[in-house]
Amino acid sequence: MRLLYEANMEDIAVGAAILGSGGGSDPYIGKLMAREAIRRYGPVPLCSLDDLADDDLVLPVAGMGAPTVLGEKLPAGDDILRVYETLGRYSGRAPRATMSIEAGGMNSIRPIYIAARLGIPVVDCDGMGRAFPEIQMTVLTAHGISASPFVMSDERGNILLINAVSNRWVETFSRSCVMHMGATCAIALYSATVKQLKEAAIHGTITLAEELGVTVRQARLHEKNPVAALCQFVGGFLLFRGKITDVDRRVVAGFARGKASMSGSGDFAGQDLWLDFQNEHLAVRLDGRYIATTPDLIAVLDGETAKPITTEGLRYGMRVAVIAIPCAPQWREPAALALVHPRYFGYDVDYIPVEERFHS
Amino acid sequence: MRLLYEANMEDIAVGAAILGSGGGSDPYIGKLMAREAIRRYGPVPLCSLDDLADDDLVLPVAGMGAPTVLGEKLPAGDDILRVYETLGRYSGRAPRATMSIEAGGMNSIRPIYIAARLGIPVVDCDGMGRAFPEIQMTVLTAHGISASPFVMSDERGNILLINAVSNRWVETFSRSCVMHMGATCAIALYSATVKQLKEAAIHGTITLAEELGVTVRQARLHEKNPVAALCQFVGGFLLFRGKITDVDRRVVAGFARGKASMSGSGDFAGQDLWLDFQNEHLAVRLDGRYIATTPDLIAVLDGETAKPITTEGLRYGMRVAVIAIPCAPQWREPAALALVHPRYFGYDVDYIPVEERFHS
Repeated sequence: MRLLYEANMEDIAVGAAILGSGGGSDPYIGKLMAREAIRRYGPVPLCSLDDLADDDLVLPVAGMGAPTVLGEKLPAGDDILRVYETLGRYSGRAPRATMSIEAGGMNSIRPIYIAARLGIPVVDCDGMGRAFPEIQMTVLTAHGISASPFVMSDERGNILLINAVSNRWVETFSRSCVMHMGATCAIALYSATVKQLKEAAIHGTITLAEELGVTVRQARLHEKNPVAALCQFVGGFLLFRGKITDVDRRVVAGFARGKASMSGSGDFAGQDLWLDFQNEHLAVRLDGRYIATTPDLIAVLDGETAKPITTEGLRYGMRVAVIAIPCAPQWREPAALALVHPRYFGYDVDYIPVEERFHS
Repeated sequence: MRLLYEANMEDIAVGAAILGSGGGSDPYIGKLMAREAIRRYGPVPLCSLDDLADDDLVLPVAGMGAPTVLGEKLPAGDDILRVYETLGRYSGRAPRATMSIEAGGMNSIRPIYIAARLGIPVVDCDGMGRAFPEIQMTVLTAHGISASPFVMSDERGNILLINAVSNRWVETFSRSCVMHMGATCAIALYSATVKQLKEAAIHGTITLAEELGVTVRQARLHEKNPVAALCQFVGGFLLFRGKITDVDRRVVAGFARGKASMSGSGDFAGQDLWLDFQNEHLAVRLDGRYIATTPDLIAVLDGETAKPITTEGLRYGMRVAVIAIPCAPQWREPAALALVHPRYFGYDVDYIPVEERFHS
């Protein structure tokens, strides 16, 4: 166990946004929120599952909705507190700690915020090792852990509690309601025991996020290429360098959906890249051929500074680097892969691990 | 207090369907369901609010959705039990009795069904004295009674609990979710103390329904005109007699919406009637002029037998009588009227009590 201070938030937010694969919302807002909470309430214990008892209950919190909206309608924090406390009351059992359900600029940070406010630890693990757009898309689902009871709340104080027969049904009901909440709300879900999480969760995500943030920051400091440093550290692959030539993005059915096209430069001059996203970047085609897909991580970075660019931050004219990072190995097991396969999202392509595509 | 037996169900179902103003679903299914429950579990105590203690909790149950669907997807009853028990558990306090939230062929009967199964009394009152399509449309809302906590459940076993900041917000969230439940579900809502209900509820609705059923049945038995007998008993007005010439009905946004046109016969020969509905009959125009609107009750009856015809039962060629019945006086108070005014439903007309239209 160690303590997270204000000073840790910058690196964690940047690294988590890289892992977020375009989703999980703006790291800048997340960072401000967590720093403010730590300043007011003190540093937050970051513990591993081994620091807790097997039957301790862990309750993840997150934000849900279209990240495009979240950047305009900032969370006050009370909604997160409300979902955490409502679910604890409903379960009739106080959670011992919180954790992230996904990695992302905001969704890695919200648990730290609530931990600071309530004086509880954050567990260094998550349910995806990246971000995905739908509730059932976690390795926890593949291990039979229920997303129910699920609580969502908006800034008005409306509270919905869902107890559904499958995690896919939680997605259906909650997605339908989040649209009425103005396309953004706070959620608490997937409460699980430490024993369950030891088997099912992806471990060390916050620490990994911080290490990525440090890697990028230090490369900049030493005037090294931060994109290359990042790829080297994490075993990622440079897919493309170029300029964004078009962005088509809409808020549809509670998601930010769309695509971006890019025109290559340097080694990639004369080539075109298409990026498809639904809150998260899901597939990349180079000159019409798929070169990386979900569940591998696809990050769009500022070409110079390696600052991660979320789906809602993509703009015409930006000069970017696009990298792919192999997903957590749990995603490649059949039950998990079925939840997030390219075909689930409508892409007519097999999943081939990105390192196989590049090593062959 | 008196007991309700199988033999009472026929009259109650018919009378409640008349009060239902086209909504509240098919009395035939409701009758079968309640008779079956009473046969298995015994007669149900029907009590008045005065039979209970002021701080006793009463929990209404109902069905929600498009009645067109409900006639095809029959309720098993377990969903009603589930919402009743879930809400009681969540409130941390066992309800003492149940009641109807609206009058209608099914929604007057569901509480009797659950009362039989659980061995609890039904209170002889309701929240509308008729049926209305949206959750917040009760005289209870006008008295500041919250529809929250609100529970809905489908036949699969999905459960949603809503704690909203207004009754209109309960409608928004629940309507959005009932569509995903296949446009029908069981609900428990508006839990209130006997003291609150004494001030706010409409009293004697089940007894009134039974009296209407008896009136119609006896008129038939004695070969009197049952439509006239009904109007005389309840102070209603015959608006029209004729043949249905067209029905335009769709399931839209979780409602059965549409209109029917009718061509007059007898005293009404040469005249045309238009009936607009959204689950319930809401407005009637004779040769283009409004002659009755919400919140007054509009019932379409078989022209010969006075059998009530619900919105989903309207068919081309049916020979019908259309009657209007003054609504409960509570609806004419400003706070209540605003909830169900013709203009709320999009009809550009003032509300004029039906007896004023006919006596002027």
